[in-house]
Amino acid sequence: MSGVLTVVGLGPGNDAQITPEVTAALAKATDVVGYIPYVKRIPVREGLTLHATDNRVELDRAVHALEMAAAGRRVVVVSSGDPGVFAMASAVFETLEKNPAFGSIQIEIMPGVTAMLAAAARVGAPLGHDFCAINLSDNLKPWATVERRLRLAAQADFAMALYNPRSAARPHQFALVLEILREECGPDRLIVFARAVTTPEERITVMSVMEADADMADMRTVVLVGNAATRRVGPYLYTPRHAE
Amino acid sequence: MSGVLTVVGLGPGNDAQITPEVTAALAKATDVVGYIPYVKRIPVREGLTLHATDNRVELDRAVHALEMAAAGRRVVVVSSGDPGVFAMASAVFETLEKNPAFGSIQIEIMPGVTAMLAAAARVGAPLGHDFCAINLSDNLKPWATVERRLRLAAQADFAMALYNPRSAARPHQFALVLEILREECGPDRLIVFARAVTTPEERITVMSVMEADADMADMRTVVLVGNAATRRVGPYLYTPRHAE
Repeated sequence: MSGVLTVVGLGPGNDAQITPEVTAALAKATDVVGYIPYVKRIPVREGLTLHATDNRVELDRAVHALEMAAAGRRVVVVSSGDPGVFAMASAVFETLEKNPAFGSIQIEIMPGVTAMLAAAARVGAPLGHDFCAINLSDNLKPWATVERRLRLAAQADFAMALYNPRSAARPHQFALVLEILREECGPDRLIVFARAVTTPEERITVMSVMEADADMADMRTVVLVGNAATRRVGPYLYTPRHAE
Repeated sequence: MSGVLTVVGLGPGNDAQITPEVTAALAKATDVVGYIPYVKRIPVREGLTLHATDNRVELDRAVHALEMAAAGRRVVVVSSGDPGVFAMASAVFETLEKNPAFGSIQIEIMPGVTAMLAAAARVGAPLGHDFCAINLSDNLKPWATVERRLRLAAQADFAMALYNPRSAARPHQFALVLEILREECGPDRLIVFARAVTTPEERITVMSVMEADADMADMRTVVLVGNAATRRVGPYLYTPRHAE
């Protein structure tokens, strides 16, 4: 089986943040595969079939995409943000590993603007010093691992980007995250809730972790947490480039 | 003083990774300000003045840009990659903080594809699980802080992106970084040297930290380090979405 499968990032929502190489890949595609809200962003045109699937079926979606690529179709898998950050690229390689028959299909990954970078840009430069990105979902890892990483990240004084902070299946965990942050970082640490960043529904709020409430995050929110030096300057939030 | 200052990311090198919103901002600019190699990427045109300055003068550069914005010019500060990741956005806010006279200038940040995401895409999906980004330069922080963060990041089992791994001013430090990684992560941990990613001079090598040598990194290299589960599948490198 030969073929090429392209996995692209659409950026967080605003089409003006889709890179030209991704736009060109989409223009040549015969099939676009992805989660429903991301596939909805692709304009319908003759010769293009859209395959939109529900959440949590990443591996089925990857198998389907690889099968079509093996059949000679020009398949593009779409992710929001960057495909390599808590998105479809990893799922495609996992599928490749489990299905050696797909081994000769060439995989091409095209990066995008991931949500944390777009959110950071909207408030200033909170990720201007060393930082980390943690997926808070415990679908794919134990909650204890999430908690341990949060504590070590705080001890390293990383600024943090927290993806998937909250979902209907686990409404209570984000309250625990806020407790850990208050404990490890103190009550005054600055936190940003960036919901639906760069879209018409964008809503961004900045406050201290003491003022933060678990209901402020939902599935469309990326949360940024400053490091010990993160501060406000006018309406902006930034983390200095230097550190003690 | 009023005015608008726009700070943009040009992505790591390939113009096909510059977002349309950045291209539009550059098309309207009267002045472009930045480090020499990044300003060189901007096509010359009538009505546009290019202000290219040397490295390590970020604050002077920011003052100059803010002064021109205050004088009513349409100024764009360019960074490589994303402006909020070890780049000019933080320097602009630092300048704003030190010079309250610039307080009424509006600052607009436009994100870009940062080097670690482009490098990850070229090899597969090594940042597909929780990860951190550390600037290895000790120009702006003590070396002890760098070392402590590396050890905590390894203990948290973050994949890592290491920016500014090596420069002429500090040729020996990256050898220490490799020692720390061998000690904390074991000899088989996978490491990627991605030099000049997406440019014609791109050179990407993947190996174990045991095989790695300090000379493999230079000023144009971003280094990626896998987590404990990062593995090869065919010619690719990926980090599974799940963890113990």
